[in-house]
Amino acid sequence: MTKSIDAIPTKEEIANAHERISSFIHRAPVLSNQTMNGLAGAELFFKCENFQKVGAFKFRGATNAILQLSEDEKRNGVVTHSSGNHAQALSLAAKFNGLSAYIVMPNNAPIPKRKAVAGYGAEIVLCEPTLEAREAAAKKVIERTGAAFIHPFNDYRVIAGAATAAKELIEDCDNLDYIIAPVGGGGLLSGTALTAKYFSPQTKVVGAEPEGANDAFLTFKSGEFVPQNNPNTVCDGLRTSLGDKTFRIILDHVNDVMTANDDEIIQAMRLVWERMKIIIEPSCAVTLAVVLKNPEIFRDKRIGLILTGGNVDLEKLPF
Amino acid sequence: MTKSIDAIPTKEEIANAHERISSFIHRAPVLSNQTMNGLAGAELFFKCENFQKVGAFKFRGATNAILQLSEDEKRNGVVTHSSGNHAQALSLAAKFNGLSAYIVMPNNAPIPKRKAVAGYGAEIVLCEPTLEAREAAAKKVIERTGAAFIHPFNDYRVIAGAATAAKELIEDCDNLDYIIAPVGGGGLLSGTALTAKYFSPQTKVVGAEPEGANDAFLTFKSGEFVPQNNPNTVCDGLRTSLGDKTFRIILDHVNDVMTANDDEIIQAMRLVWERMKIIIEPSCAVTLAVVLKNPEIFRDKRIGLILTGGNVDLEKLPF
Repeated sequence: MTKSIDAIPTKEEIANAHERISSFIHRAPVLSNQTMNGLAGAELFFKCENFQKVGAFKFRGATNAILQLSEDEKRNGVVTHSSGNHAQALSLAAKFNGLSAYIVMPNNAPIPKRKAVAGYGAEIVLCEPTLEAREAAAKKVIERTGAAFIHPFNDYRVIAGAATAAKELIEDCDNLDYIIAPVGGGGLLSGTALTAKYFSPQTKVVGAEPEGANDAFLTFKSGEFVPQNNPNTVCDGLRTSLGDKTFRIILDHVNDVMTANDDEIIQAMRLVWERMKIIIEPSCAVTLAVVLKNPEIFRDKRIGLILTGGNVDLEKLPF
Repeated sequence: MTKSIDAIPTKEEIANAHERISSFIHRAPVLSNQTMNGLAGAELFFKCENFQKVGAFKFRGATNAILQLSEDEKRNGVVTHSSGNHAQALSLAAKFNGLSAYIVMPNNAPIPKRKAVAGYGAEIVLCEPTLEAREAAAKKVIERTGAAFIHPFNDYRVIAGAATAAKELIEDCDNLDYIIAPVGGGGLLSGTALTAKYFSPQTKVVGAEPEGANDAFLTFKSGEFVPQNNPNTVCDGLRTSLGDKTFRIILDHVNDVMTANDDEIIQAMRLVWERMKIIIEPSCAVTLAVVLKNPEIFRDKRIGLILTGGNVDLEKLPF
């Protein structure tokens, strides 16, 4: 687990983050669909962060983090390691604010994500697809440039930024029984849980995770940190372990973590593509997969699902 | 050319059609996207009929036609022949109104479209993929059932219904310089041209057509009806000839017809998928393809594009 100081974002800090980033982000729409409601036997509200800038909610956290840097910090730019969406997000947020960005990416990251990062003017540093290799490469960049490290999820500024997606969802949809967010490193799930606690305490927050990368599930059920080793899932955004910050928030504020297997996730993804005509990544189809496989829990409920991103490699679709 | 009586829809008839169908249809959103504007060097407004019920604008015309049937006509149900979207549209519109629907489909129609038609409870009659075979099969159904024939495009009720998409686009976007609609049989293009004439006379209307099925282009340029023989294009919705009604309206009220080849269409389709994260059919990507290949005409203009549908076979994508 990556360590760090500071404190869990307060209600005021999440509200401030929302105000701080509001002129940079899209207020992504919330879509509903009668066919999907019928299939789920529930009322589903899809928060479409696939329509967010860079095609993913990650732009919220990256923007909030950059806007909180000191002028001194901004001078040397920012650096991160990311399997994709955070990389694009930080690159574009840096570009909007005139900062340099250095992005450490695993050499198996989808081509469109690499192209997009390069298109935003960031410097890409490729490394092996392990956490150790990423961290070592990022450290080297920091030594070389003095850039500020913006972790993809284990950073309270990033968590507070990610939290704003659920805040908008709550503002747009009254009386949600559940909000379901995918969980990889746990930044979005942490922010979502804090937001629900502060702004809609009757709403339960559930993390959805692929069976092939079920570290958060095992962690949540045992109460002890379980790292993710050898993830095996189509959800390329959900293969990471929790961080120390997200671990603590998830244990304290999330109501449940549920899993679905890759077949169920791909089927859910396909349903969204075919019925809603929108493009989502496998990593966010896991939320719908969890709803569809647990009708006894979700029937007749009002459920917000955060569609986290729409960046897929059209050459390598899982259908 | 299919013949028929009646008169070209007036302004009032299009307004009435809109009111008539309004409780049945979605008011599909108009999306814009900075990246796409940058690529086009123009302001683009995408009317998202891919989000319409049945995933296509065809639901507008089918609904309008059914709602104008007499009670006597309704008793025997409706029949049509269609390569796909009109089939789904008529099936669902019939279902909503408690009518039987008989759908003659070519045996090469995409599987998802056949599944959807069956799912709406219509009876499917398969035939060879030629206009002659379709018409013969439909005639047989009429002899058997007495069903009312609703042509996919060469019907003023269908044209007036299709016209309502452009009416909404004009209501939602001021001062459009152009509206571009795909042209297959010409129902949408006819309705769009009439709508612009009535509701926004300064807006020019352009038809966009694949090079491999350029009968409307040849017809428009020569002023003489040119049938579509042996179409060869990825745009499965645009392979038909004009009808006598759409021929006349297009010659009299459309400003231009422009073409793009399949490579350009697929590239435009891919741009929309990757950048806008929405699923569109090749048949409507032709509008964007035409804009991108003619910057000298469209630069700095405000352009409405009608995204006609989102029904694709995910097993057979052209990328």
